[in-house]
Amino acid sequence: MKKFAVGIDIGGTNTKFGIVDKEGTIVTQGRMLTNAKETVQGFIEDLYQQLYPMVEEAGGRDQFAGIGIGAPNGNYYTGNIEHAANLKWKGIVPLAAMIQERFGMPVKLTNDANAAAAGEQQYGCAKGMRDFITITLGTGVGSGIFINGKIVLGHDGFAGELGHTIIRPGGRMHPGTGIRGPLEAYASATGVRETALEMLANHPDKHSLLRNFKPEELTSETVYECAINGDAIAKEIFDFTGQLLGEALANFVMFSSPEAIVLFGGLTKAGDLILNPTRNAMEANLVQVFKNKVKLVFSNLKEADAAILGASALIWDEA
Amino acid sequence: MKKFAVGIDIGGTNTKFGIVDKEGTIVTQGRMLTNAKETVQGFIEDLYQQLYPMVEEAGGRDQFAGIGIGAPNGNYYTGNIEHAANLKWKGIVPLAAMIQERFGMPVKLTNDANAAAAGEQQYGCAKGMRDFITITLGTGVGSGIFINGKIVLGHDGFAGELGHTIIRPGGRMHPGTGIRGPLEAYASATGVRETALEMLANHPDKHSLLRNFKPEELTSETVYECAINGDAIAKEIFDFTGQLLGEALANFVMFSSPEAIVLFGGLTKAGDLILNPTRNAMEANLVQVFKNKVKLVFSNLKEADAAILGASALIWDEA
Repeated sequence: MKKFAVGIDIGGTNTKFGIVDKEGTIVTQGRMLTNAKETVQGFIEDLYQQLYPMVEEAGGRDQFAGIGIGAPNGNYYTGNIEHAANLKWKGIVPLAAMIQERFGMPVKLTNDANAAAAGEQQYGCAKGMRDFITITLGTGVGSGIFINGKIVLGHDGFAGELGHTIIRPGGRMHPGTGIRGPLEAYASATGVRETALEMLANHPDKHSLLRNFKPEELTSETVYECAINGDAIAKEIFDFTGQLLGEALANFVMFSSPEAIVLFGGLTKAGDLILNPTRNAMEANLVQVFKNKVKLVFSNLKEADAAILGASALIWDEA
Repeated sequence: MKKFAVGIDIGGTNTKFGIVDKEGTIVTQGRMLTNAKETVQGFIEDLYQQLYPMVEEAGGRDQFAGIGIGAPNGNYYTGNIEHAANLKWKGIVPLAAMIQERFGMPVKLTNDANAAAAGEQQYGCAKGMRDFITITLGTGVGSGIFINGKIVLGHDGFAGELGHTIIRPGGRMHPGTGIRGPLEAYASATGVRETALEMLANHPDKHSLLRNFKPEELTSETVYECAINGDAIAKEIFDFTGQLLGEALANFVMFSSPEAIVLFGGLTKAGDLILNPTRNAMEANLVQVFKNKVKLVFSNLKEADAAILGASALIWDEA
């Protein structure tokens, strides 16, 4: 029985890594800049210099089941990072193979949203579940889906882009894709800000605490602050966001009938302000057989640890 | 190596059954009324009297891998039929266990839409695929989903209700569920008829061959006849239906990234009139990584055989 797994989370700015045991305790961790070196070889060498001593200290390679990596555009099937917009390494980078060679340990790689789902299944509130969905409500909307105990990857490794599913045909345009009405255009931090600007413009005469902020200061946090201080428009923003999110979740439930949907990310800080309208809209759009069955919960993993945990979980999980 | 499987398709009116080899040839088949007897025991006895001699003739039980059953509200996990609205047997009926006992052969049971998907994978145009979706465009809209080589059942056995996913929030009400805007309200034979009535009412002055029919004669077949005779409104009906269906398919693709989507059922008789607008709308709503990848095809199984084939495929498949 191997005692540890390494989790590596590669982000556009920082790369975080840690040594994790099977219960989800991060024994040691570190971080480095992702783009300090020009080449992926330089990145791997930096990583090795910092991470390998930690592996040694924890008893050496033999104690490790392997290395899990969450990375933007990471493809589980190939172990490649493919055309990641916010990394310096362009084209197709066979990162899993390269790290496996340098570290002499098995490596699994997927995108960060799938890694987050693996983390929930191994250590979080989807522990032991075979069918569930995680939705990350951050700057964008990410998703990871488990069906029959495995991450859903699709025939090409790119499944689980629920943030891009259309919930308002002809609706708000997604600036990145040019497609109208996707979930991400509404249920992300960016989307909440957009909704705030729209609602303030649509009700020019209505008093709102939100008007104390300059447009560039309006964020999902400001909206939250105003909502808990009783501001009607701020509450309406969360009601609207929850309505659309809940409708989307109902569609996901009717696809895969998950035991739970786990919400994660910045928007969940709004607590019941977002959870209640979301749950109500989800239930209202479910046909009878699915009603009052799906657990809709916030992640219980610490946001700071979740990325490393999720990456490490790829190793325990046999996706 | 077992040579045969039995496929049984239980419908509201007829039950069809047949003996099928691994290549999808139906060696013998028969049918009976589903509701001729008051009780499920009576049904099973009728079935045994007709079907068991066929099994004997094909070499006896030892030549058979088992019996697959497609039935309304059939639950794969439990083998039960649960509260099927159009069967005489009320409540929860442990049909798989009862048939297994009577015939002395292993039995697998699921709903008809999942059986259809199994049939496509075993004998049809999804042969050997691990990730695909079948959509039946009939009186209603049914669906069966394969992911990682297995039928998606969800945590409770009821996954794959894609006909109930919302594609037009606040849109047309589904008469059965009371929920507004689901795919089934538009992309079914019933939905096409509804669209025809709406479009004729909305353009009272526009000439249309459809006006030669009484409202109760308007069906997806009449609309098809008029469309191939050059009728503009009839064509627009298929364009509209395809637009909505294509948008829905795009959402499904972004969920599970299937290799193919197989369309089946009455509406597919409209051929390119429905396929082209569907494909265009699907592609237009996909983010880049999914574009021009998904095979969108009509089933190549004969409609008369498909239900028996699908049911028998449950036995070869290890879902």
